[in-house]
Amino acid sequence: MTAPLRVGVAGLGTVGAGVVKLLRENAALIAGRAGRPIAVTAVSARERHRDRGVSLDGLRWHADAKALAAEPEVDVVVEVIGGAEGPARRLVEAAIAAGKPVVTANKALLATHGVEIARLAEAKGVPLAYEAAVAGGIPAIKALREGLAGNRISRVAGILNGTCNYILTEMRLRGLSFEAVLSEAQALGYAEADPSFDVDGVDAAHKLAILAALAFGRPVDLASLHIEGIRRVSALDISLAGEFGYRIKLLGIATRDEHGVSARVHPCMVPLASPIAAVEGVFNAVLAEGDAVGRVMLQGRGAGAGPTASAVVADLIDIARGRGAPVWGADALDDAPAVPMERHVGAYYLRLMVTDRPGVIADVTGILRDERISLESMLQRGRSPEEAVPVVLVTHDCEEAAMRQALARIEALDAVLEPPAVIRIEAL
Amino acid sequence: MTAPLRVGVAGLGTVGAGVVKLLRENAALIAGRAGRPIAVTAVSARERHRDRGVSLDGLRWHADAKALAAEPEVDVVVEVIGGAEGPARRLVEAAIAAGKPVVTANKALLATHGVEIARLAEAKGVPLAYEAAVAGGIPAIKALREGLAGNRISRVAGILNGTCNYILTEMRLRGLSFEAVLSEAQALGYAEADPSFDVDGVDAAHKLAILAALAFGRPVDLASLHIEGIRRVSALDISLAGEFGYRIKLLGIATRDEHGVSARVHPCMVPLASPIAAVEGVFNAVLAEGDAVGRVMLQGRGAGAGPTASAVVADLIDIARGRGAPVWGADALDDAPAVPMERHVGAYYLRLMVTDRPGVIADVTGILRDERISLESMLQRGRSPEEAVPVVLVTHDCEEAAMRQALARIEALDAVLEPPAVIRIEAL
Repeated sequence: MTAPLRVGVAGLGTVGAGVVKLLRENAALIAGRAGRPIAVTAVSARERHRDRGVSLDGLRWHADAKALAAEPEVDVVVEVIGGAEGPARRLVEAAIAAGKPVVTANKALLATHGVEIARLAEAKGVPLAYEAAVAGGIPAIKALREGLAGNRISRVAGILNGTCNYILTEMRLRGLSFEAVLSEAQALGYAEADPSFDVDGVDAAHKLAILAALAFGRPVDLASLHIEGIRRVSALDISLAGEFGYRIKLLGIATRDEHGVSARVHPCMVPLASPIAAVEGVFNAVLAEGDAVGRVMLQGRGAGAGPTASAVVADLIDIARGRGAPVWGADALDDAPAVPMERHVGAYYLRLMVTDRPGVIADVTGILRDERISLESMLQRGRSPEEAVPVVLVTHDCEEAAMRQALARIEALDAVLEPPAVIRIEAL
Repeated sequence: MTAPLRVGVAGLGTVGAGVVKLLRENAALIAGRAGRPIAVTAVSARERHRDRGVSLDGLRWHADAKALAAEPEVDVVVEVIGGAEGPARRLVEAAIAAGKPVVTANKALLATHGVEIARLAEAKGVPLAYEAAVAGGIPAIKALREGLAGNRISRVAGILNGTCNYILTEMRLRGLSFEAVLSEAQALGYAEADPSFDVDGVDAAHKLAILAALAFGRPVDLASLHIEGIRRVSALDISLAGEFGYRIKLLGIATRDEHGVSARVHPCMVPLASPIAAVEGVFNAVLAEGDAVGRVMLQGRGAGAGPTASAVVADLIDIARGRGAPVWGADALDDAPAVPMERHVGAYYLRLMVTDRPGVIADVTGILRDERISLESMLQRGRSPEEAVPVVLVTHDCEEAAMRQALARIEALDAVLEPPAVIRIEAL
């Protein structure tokens, strides 16, 4: 057996401590699979003397993460600090400059500076691995970059944020509001005190940008991504979705066709019989469609110490074995244009709260007809003259631009009492 | 760009022709991902002049597959002939002996001679890749061998035969018998004229043996595998399963615990809410449970030209990139003992056809009590004195040996009119 691969871990939060622990607990098995031992030799974190459930005895300590890049006892740097800027970015750039392979779980960094960092890594011939950046323990990066490498990928999609999927699942099972489940999740530590990164779809967008770059061999372009979170999903819409045979999921979806690449994160209605509808709670899923393979879906835990450490250690084993791939999967990146959200074509669920009075439905359907949007079904239950009642409309495929025009006019109607709830339908 | 990787394809059935086609259609994309072109230069099949939908112009032709091993224009051999013996085995052994990497889709060969062939390959330092041997286009081998390599795997399971899953799905959706759906599937070309390899569970057992070897780092041991197919699954049991909240799937399941490794293929009842219950029709699924990652499941098409070619080409790209792993994932294989089926512990669904007469249920439940098997629920619907009625019993966990004892005694009762239908319940 050859010399150990010496690892420096930057960031000793849940994930960093999880990596140290996993490398120790499964040391023999990992050495067998890696062909050599993998051992943590140095660490970096802000506070030295916090109890993290792992002993740091015998490890070199650096208060400044960037110092791991220069540490002679370190062959590979694991970056689990997080954040698109600051110490994480400085460490990753320094490690690459020093010729040391980097394993990172940092989706914000890759989604924001991925092209630039990949260029540095490839110029230096240094591996940059990031399985843990997307969908935690699910080997989605490896599946897309290597497992499906013979395919032209037309679509990649997924449930990419466990907090959102947990909230939507609890709302459905217990009939609760978004706010009620969020407060509870915060109290239990499942959601952050400031949840906007998760619930507004930003985290899912970072992961989608990475998946799209890999799937389509095209640089990450966060600015062109359409992002909506789950704050406006109501218990009423979740329940109505069920009646129409759908389940509401926050999905990231990127597609490539002859017009270019479109990428979007928003709540979707997916058919109940669709396998992605069965992915519940904190579980994540990643789905890819390739020209040869058809549809492949992977599911598992998207976050947490164990799953994330599993992904980091898999990357370390690849590095120990000398297995590598270009950062974005191919030697050259593509330059397909971004397709704006206005050009999106799909079916829509609209739920209006209207005053129950003659002529309202005629006004609404007239506007849809003017915009050449045809209806698949409509639901108005019961009658309460002059009171607020929900009306649900499900459309056939139409263009987002037409839908936006129609919505602006519908919202302006006197009898329409609040902004319409709009959820796109995806036949995944 | 470096010199092309030159491929010899042995076997030009659906899969072989699919590989030739995929390498041509996605040539530029594959070259980008592989870092060099991958080109078929030679082929072998029994009949030279059959229309396979791909041109063989300019390719070297060998009537004897084994000759590809000696062909100077071939760097890598793709074996898609099939069969545990004969030309497939001779070719694989000759290629390894000649130092040429082998990509094979041959589960029978690997399940039967995998240990021996792996030894040859490792002695020669020659890559032996077999993504296509299990679950078609799903990158399950890569996920287990590399993506989850940091984990101690405790269980690997899956829907490993698309023909069986298709038959069970159609039986359920249309209320048809096994025989009716099988004949139809044969007429449509979805099932073989001699279907026993599929419907008796042998094909699934081959794949399970490979997954278990990889997951547990332990030699394949087909003889210790418990195998039951789907011939005895009835439309009645499928319908009753639904009433009890289950769906019937043919699963391969291998587990490892302190006693050793158990591996079995048989029809199972899985909870309707379980993600594996949502895998329908010809789709396959592979599930793994690791100590760090928890449960991960992959699903997709398990057979067919496109999905299988996708897996073969992924292996070729790995070889072109120089990415490799020991055949069974680790440098040394384990020698955990096989746990016999008699030691299996789980819950059981029993459906008896009994004469509706006083005392029958008391006799049956008395036998179960004698064997210390406790009941979770029982269903006897309607009453038809002195006629045959179905009685369903669902047990709590018990040992297979006790269940077999009980079944022998139950079957011997006068009022029990046919052998009990027994389906194991799996909380996957």
